[in-house]
Amino acid sequence: MPSTTFTYRVRYAETDQMGTYYNARALEWFEMGRTELSRTMGLPYTEWEQRGIFMPLIEASVKYRGRAAYDDLLEMTVSAGVEGRTRLKFSNTVVHAESRRPVCSGWTMHALINREGVPQRIPDWVLALGF
Amino acid sequence: MPSTTFTYRVRYAETDQMGTYYNARALEWFEMGRTELSRTMGLPYTEWEQRGIFMPLIEASVKYRGRAAYDDLLEMTVSAGVEGRTRLKFSNTVVHAESRRPVCSGWTMHALINREGVPQRIPDWVLALGF
Amino acid sequence: MPSTTFTYRVRYAETDQMGTYYNARALEWFEMGRTELSRTMGLPYTEWEQRGIFMPLIEASVKYRGRAAYDDLLEMTVSAGVEGRTRLKFSNTVVHAESRRPVCSGWTMHALINREGVPQRIPDWVLALGF
Amino acid sequence: MPSTTFTYRVRYAETDQMGTYYNARALEWFEMGRTELSRTMGLPYTEWEQRGIFMPLIEASVKYRGRAAYDDLLEMTVSAGVEGRTRLKFSNTVVHAESRRPVCSGWTMHALINREGVPQRIPDWVLALGF
Repeated sequence: MPSTTFTYRVRYAETDQMGTYYNARALEWFEMGRTELSRTMGLPYTEWEQRGIFMPLIEASVKYRGRAAYDDLLEMTVSAGVEGRTRLKFSNTVVHAESRRPVCSGWTMHALINREGVPQRIPDWVLALGF
Repeated sequence: MPSTTFTYRVRYAETDQMGTYYNARALEWFEMGRTELSRTMGLPYTEWEQRGIFMPLIEASVKYRGRAAYDDLLEMTVSAGVEGRTRLKFSNTVVHAESRRPVCSGWTMHALINREGVPQRIPDWVLALGF
Repeated sequence: MPSTTFTYRVRYAETDQMGTYYNARALEWFEMGRTELSRTMGLPYTEWEQRGIFMPLIEASVKYRGRAAYDDLLEMTVSAGVEGRTRLKFSNTVVHAESRRPVCSGWTMHALINREGVPQRIPDWVLALGF
Repeated sequence: MPSTTFTYRVRYAETDQMGTYYNARALEWFEMGRTELSRTMGLPYTEWEQRGIFMPLIEASVKYRGRAAYDDLLEMTVSAGVEGRTRLKFSNTVVHAESRRPVCSGWTMHALINREGVPQRIPDWVLALGF
């Protein structure tokens, strides 16, 4: 199963008045993970869209495991696989880069559609990337 | 189980280049629902925090069921209940206000902590609100 | 000069770890103001886009005047006018609804373009709205 | 005047249904610039806050100069200087990293306050960083 790991820092914008990252931002981070992984696999997601394949979320699940404040250095590991003939699933785990303390983890499930919104089977060129 | 229903409009900021609401915004909407419900139940969440009780998410689940564009009028129904002695669960359903077409649904699970981050049992004054 | 006034509450998502609204959110609020004003003037901005007129920002200015925390009830006044033959300017003022303490104020300047991004003069049907 | 330059990519979350970055996100990017610059100057902004100095915005100005889509590689240059004895001003310019096409530019003006919100003169240790 393809996977990649990268680090990033928490933006001030991503914190809230509880002094930790705002819960919805985890999903924004998961999206960064998909972007990084598709690039690592050799075909950035921008090119998927140029080829007419879009990958909207149909489901998301997040477990919040610990705090993360502004400028904390976080490390995400993201992996991906197919689910049947029409869906892709990405799994994300975020920890503090140095202490390895957990921050959040979860997954997103995606349908594949064309420009008109019609569901598509997973194209061969997606499977060929190694999903 | 306490619940409330209200309408709101999609902000331009909440859309993305796919022309629908960005996935993470669903969790921001769910938070609006918790805010509305706590007010309806007679004790706005701001007062919870003033009493020293905070309600961080420990888990979230979202199902994306349909598109919603800028300025669409949406209707959310949110309900809540206790899970054991230490957790609250809120459930949210969002549909287009007129057509009733589904937009998204899901739930968030919350721990209760004090200012120092120490887990708390659900206070009596929370239970008394009708959870 | 057309104007309108409305109230709204600060979302938890809009706060940051300084305990007040995050600075970029002011621009998101200003957008809510434009949405409300265009509706009040009789032609919601969604219909502008359906008629092929888009209104991207070319400049924005914000003055931050005071704090606003989660769930604070704010009141925005927004007004609009033409600038030459090709630009619209919206001005926004946000205060605490009860205390009238200032929160922020500013303006956004907009060009008008068509679907292809080509600059347009202000259409007669926009001027007829009362700008 | 201290300055630094770095690159970053547009997140999907940062786009809107016009197919370009949402206007408020420019201010979130400017904040990334301040974070990078303070680190480059030898004292990350997190340490400013630990020393009891906070730097809220009192004014912001943004000029929107061109489009940027999801995953575009952008380059920001950010510089900073003092304004009188109590204010810091940061200036930001964002261009497409390869084509040098402009994206946005602007500046933010900041007051310095302590934990209690009381305005402070610029501390010597801030001036010593090279502002």
